Amino acid sequence: MGFASDNGSGVPAAVLDALARANDGAVPGYGDDALSARVTDRLRAVFEAPQAEVRLVPTGSAANALALAVLTPPWGAVWCHRLAHVEVDECGAPEFFTGGAKLSLLDGAHARIDPETLDRALSRAPRSVHQVQPAALSLTTLTECGTAYSAEHLAALAGVAHRHGLGVHLDGARFANALVATGATPAELSWKAGVDVLCLGGTKNGLMAAEAVILFDPARAAEFDLRRKRGGHLLSKHRYLAAQFDAWLEGDLWLDLAARANRAGARLAQGLGAIDGVELRHPVDGNMLFPRWPAEMAEGLRAGGVRFYGGPDPDAPGHETARLVASWNTTDAEIDAALAICRGH
Amino acid sequence: MGFASDNGSGVPAAVLDALARANDGAVPGYGDDALSARVTDRLRAVFEAPQAEVRLVPTGSAANALALAVLTPPWGAVWCHRLAHVEVDECGAPEFFTGGAKLSLLDGAHARIDPETLDRALSRAPRSVHQVQPAALSLTTLTECGTAYSAEHLAALAGVAHRHGLGVHLDGARFANALVATGATPAELSWKAGVDVLCLGGTKNGLMAAEAVILFDPARAAEFDLRRKRGGHLLSKHRYLAAQFDAWLEGDLWLDLAARANRAGARLAQGLGAIDGVELRHPVDGNMLFPRWPAEMAEGLRAGGVRFYGGPDPDAPGHETARLVASWNTTDAEIDAALAICRGH
Amino acid sequence: MGFASDNGSGVPAAVLDALARANDGAVPGYGDDALSARVTDRLRAVFEAPQAEVRLVPTGSAANALALAVLTPPWGAVWCHRLAHVEVDECGAPEFFTGGAKLSLLDGAHARIDPETLDRALSRAPRSVHQVQPAALSLTTLTECGTAYSAEHLAALAGVAHRHGLGVHLDGARFANALVATGATPAELSWKAGVDVLCLGGTKNGLMAAEAVILFDPARAAEFDLRRKRGGHLLSKHRYLAAQFDAWLEGDLWLDLAARANRAGARLAQGLGAIDGVELRHPVDGNMLFPRWPAEMAEGLRAGGVRFYGGPDPDAPGHETARLVASWNTTDAEIDAALAICRGH
Amino acid sequence: MGFASDNGSGVPAAVLDALARANDGAVPGYGDDALSARVTDRLRAVFEAPQAEVRLVPTGSAANALALAVLTPPWGAVWCHRLAHVEVDECGAPEFFTGGAKLSLLDGAHARIDPETLDRALSRAPRSVHQVQPAALSLTTLTECGTAYSAEHLAALAGVAHRHGLGVHLDGARFANALVATGATPAELSWKAGVDVLCLGGTKNGLMAAEAVILFDPARAAEFDLRRKRGGHLLSKHRYLAAQFDAWLEGDLWLDLAARANRAGARLAQGLGAIDGVELRHPVDGNMLFPRWPAEMAEGLRAGGVRFYGGPDPDAPGHETARLVASWNTTDAEIDAALAICRGH
Repeated sequence: MGFASDNGSGVPAAVLDALARANDGAVPGYGDDALSARVTDRLRAVFEAPQAEVRLVPTGSAANALALAVLTPPWGAVWCHRLAHVEVDECGAPEFFTGGAKLSLLDGAHARIDPETLDRALSRAPRSVHQVQPAALSLTTLTECGTAYSAEHLAALAGVAHRHGLGVHLDGARFANALVATGATPAELSWKAGVDVLCLGGTKNGLMAAEAVILFDPARAAEFDLRRKRGGHLLSKHRYLAAQFDAWLEGDLWLDLAARANRAGARLAQGLGAIDGVELRHPVDGNMLFPRWPAEMAEGLRAGGVRFYGGPDPDAPGHETARLVASWNTTDAEIDAALAICRGH
Repeated sequence: MGFASDNGSGVPAAVLDALARANDGAVPGYGDDALSARVTDRLRAVFEAPQAEVRLVPTGSAANALALAVLTPPWGAVWCHRLAHVEVDECGAPEFFTGGAKLSLLDGAHARIDPETLDRALSRAPRSVHQVQPAALSLTTLTECGTAYSAEHLAALAGVAHRHGLGVHLDGARFANALVATGATPAELSWKAGVDVLCLGGTKNGLMAAEAVILFDPARAAEFDLRRKRGGHLLSKHRYLAAQFDAWLEGDLWLDLAARANRAGARLAQGLGAIDGVELRHPVDGNMLFPRWPAEMAEGLRAGGVRFYGGPDPDAPGHETARLVASWNTTDAEIDAALAICRGH
Repeated sequence: MGFASDNGSGVPAAVLDALARANDGAVPGYGDDALSARVTDRLRAVFEAPQAEVRLVPTGSAANALALAVLTPPWGAVWCHRLAHVEVDECGAPEFFTGGAKLSLLDGAHARIDPETLDRALSRAPRSVHQVQPAALSLTTLTECGTAYSAEHLAALAGVAHRHGLGVHLDGARFANALVATGATPAELSWKAGVDVLCLGGTKNGLMAAEAVILFDPARAAEFDLRRKRGGHLLSKHRYLAAQFDAWLEGDLWLDLAARANRAGARLAQGLGAIDGVELRHPVDGNMLFPRWPAEMAEGLRAGGVRFYGGPDPDAPGHETARLVASWNTTDAEIDAALAICRGH
Repeated sequence: MGFASDNGSGVPAAVLDALARANDGAVPGYGDDALSARVTDRLRAVFEAPQAEVRLVPTGSAANALALAVLTPPWGAVWCHRLAHVEVDECGAPEFFTGGAKLSLLDGAHARIDPETLDRALSRAPRSVHQVQPAALSLTTLTECGTAYSAEHLAALAGVAHRHGLGVHLDGARFANALVATGATPAELSWKAGVDVLCLGGTKNGLMAAEAVILFDPARAAEFDLRRKRGGHLLSKHRYLAAQFDAWLEGDLWLDLAARANRAGARLAQGLGAIDGVELRHPVDGNMLFPRWPAEMAEGLRAGGVRFYGGPDPDAPGHETARLVASWNTTDAEIDAALAICRGH
């Protein structure tokens, strides 16, 4: 029973089939193949953005870092939430790819930033030659706390950013989950809300290792291409990246996978919410849950073979905090078994 | 009929099967899975290097750049052949990953460096605070001209490098082809010859996107791990990288694939060598050929659907130079068809 | 009447004289001259550190950034106060020189960090491959709020840092003022307290453009030298840097200059403290004052030709906050004139 | 008798006087002072470039590296002569400041590049995503071999560069010597010849530590300012940089100093040219000489207290090669004494 991460799951059969189909014949490398072109076309259609440029890379850290690098100079500041993946979980990839830009951190409940907080921070940020220059806003949805931004909330934030001259990056490692959670269209949750560059995550939602960077302003693509190559992220046998996305988009499989994961998250949340002693620290908008629970309950789960990230809460003796993530293939039986263990403590 | 690159080919069925087998179950990410451990064990056995550390990444540019970054400080110089892939074809990835080290270029026939050339260059390289400090030697086999280094040649070069205090990197994008070409064992062509870090290429020899970096000195692995993560090259669903290598090593498939490619190269070389007006500019040790031929012959091949890199020879009007690469799945029929076109001109 | 910064002041005559004396003859460049050697000897004696290595550079930002670069790898984190000069006022120089390390920010009253705050933060900092690795602690004294660390306070902080495996950098742009403020010896306020690398500021205390970096562990000097050259901070006519320091150290001129500046700061603080409506936001340990005062008082000072940094307090309508810095050559008359203007409002 | 470098000399009295004059009063820092503004005005007038932006920095390596950084992206190539200071003597400063750009090297007699060589190289440079992109041409005059480019030669090179889309940087560490050597005006040898950014050296021609970067396209200044600060090269007490240049420009002192150095170079060349066994390897256009001479003659000079760079010629047993540089204050007596020693061997 794995709730450690949605990247612990396998991929649906359709993805394996697509790889097998893509395997035939000698085709041009580096993205100059028909399948890669088709993925671009499909994403343009899905996002109602016929002019957008699409680039595929193997990891989310690469997608984010490359996206930020085209939005900020080395002497720029990228504003983001204190808990953002780009700040906390990428070993400084943004600093590396940008040539040493600074991540300027903002607070906000449940890993969401308030537009007022952003506006005040940007208004007070000095911009003399002695300081790094505010250059980009980096948002995430689902956030690191599992919450979703509404399209309106995103638009308000992007509006503030643009007014202050910043570009807007959206880390969408769980963008599909966010779409399902909000009911917004892909366009509404991206360029219509003011997002300039979207990192559309595939890996956490049923792909092997494939992420799409969507540059809504195609003028940024040439620089991205050189940075991607220079970063070692231009795959020669590019068709296998494309094949994954092609299967994912076919028949809205991506949304179906995300819906399954979100439903599993909801079932788990409902079950945990009814158990005494368990507190869900953040609203559960998608497939991520953040319980605080008695240490012995956590131990019982581990003993029962349930895998998740967690550990002692330094501020609440006898308790642990944890992160549980449901996947597209999490079963009701797995959830119910985990809940049964919790109830037993 | 594709001779553009060995990265234009698909993968053998065994690789697809391995991906399908690896797909079951929830497993830990980031390389902490059993399959990844097995690949490490297998490579240690194959290379007779039980202490070596193995790291997988998706591209050869990433493998090379990360390997060089653990061998040179930002103020170091990496000595390599003027035609080396790291110099010519990676858009500055080594400079990026090393933090701005310099590639110092050496000449040598057929993309091979003579030990005397290296020794003289290193003996004359100033090492005051005003200059970058010689830090690493980067070799390639098969070279960019398709030639192989013998184990003895490699050992002589690495000996010079070590004597001058440099570490030794081997770009083995076509290492399997070099093994087949030389008859040397993996150990003889790497650490026994003095190679400190080997980039063992899978992608050009039948994998989708998988390269192994073998650090013969395990003390370098911790830094490599942080650089890999920071470079966006630590794959979360790492099992799919491992599965490719696992299938590749099983029953010496990798050597079988390389042998097929080399045989195809030899057949093509033999055929071209017998055609009037065609000159092979470099010895054909493996699966790469570099003909100079009449422009109309090249045009005829293109018209016949044969794909390869090439263009006008600026020094020989009416002629073109080209690079043809055979793959594990190049057929005799493809070769013979191409030769027939050549003979017709 | 300039209170904008101690870098707005000229230099004492002794410094000009020293430059003139150093001007004679052809001498070796790049620090290989007798005067540079003498400065090293003098600083070793002053700091009771015969093994220390001394390097001179023209700016404080260079000194800090180079010092940090030898203490942290690119994937490291430098912990410092939220208001530290390295974070706020160097346009990302530390990120640039370190190759993209991250500055991790700590809170603390009056720009001082509590050892407990540091210990808790370092204890909780994750150290997996996904995060930057805690590498260095950067402290400042006088702090950005004009306060001094006692030697005991510094030692407690450095002790925590060392216990967690971090190196300790001290930004001593106003180190002489801190010495005077605390009565500690140079050794007590540096290596005896656990400081690994000290940036000893000359420019803000009577020199033209000269800072000394003192590496108490001489093993770090070779890397520093290459980084200094590569950063464009190795001056060819090095004697002129050395001459400044030589005059500064002669007869403890540096301490005399700092004592004058501190006395001026105290006089100003005493005067302001007695004026209704003026609040000093931080203790005045040295030559820096941070008043909050009525906007019209601030305007009156400006109208009267008094120069300082300041502006509206966004949290207190009708008020301004300001920074005033006294210099070695600030006169009582200047102070009294400024105070008279304040009293008139 | 120092012929090691023109940076071994002191400064004329006028420079010391200017520093003393600039010392009075509290003035704004970071270049916002009247003296700095005057230097800008003077250089604009001297170069007949009223729109140019002028920035002062303390070293030539900083000037060059910052200048190149505004001309090339990290994935760019800077084309220069194989012997250029930026390639050979700055410990990788250009790579550091540009974020890892590549220096692409050209051959050419006496350290000068032929326009045809440049044109052919740029015409053949591939520009796909796999390669660094040609971005800048870096020239030097006086060259590293002591030769001068004529204004026509510079213009031809810059024309080729611009036609291929490259910006043009001129390393003018000895620009004043080149002006004297060619008789060209400052404008003719810079922007009128197509130079986009000139590094105008003061240090080697009578200043303590002061170089001016002249950006003929003022649109590049804002980026330069942030890079300069971030590089630690924005001096707070900027007036002392400005004062040096102010004295240097007053009454064409800079040209007078260069003329004296060039005359000394010519006298030395004439003398050496008449001595049997001495070969001058390069034309002597300015103040630099490159003799090949018997080892015992070189030893005799050293024994006689003459200082210069040199050592055994690995290609001519029994001989040494050397570099001698005359300065603004080199005396006829010094030259004649050195020549007498040579004649005695």
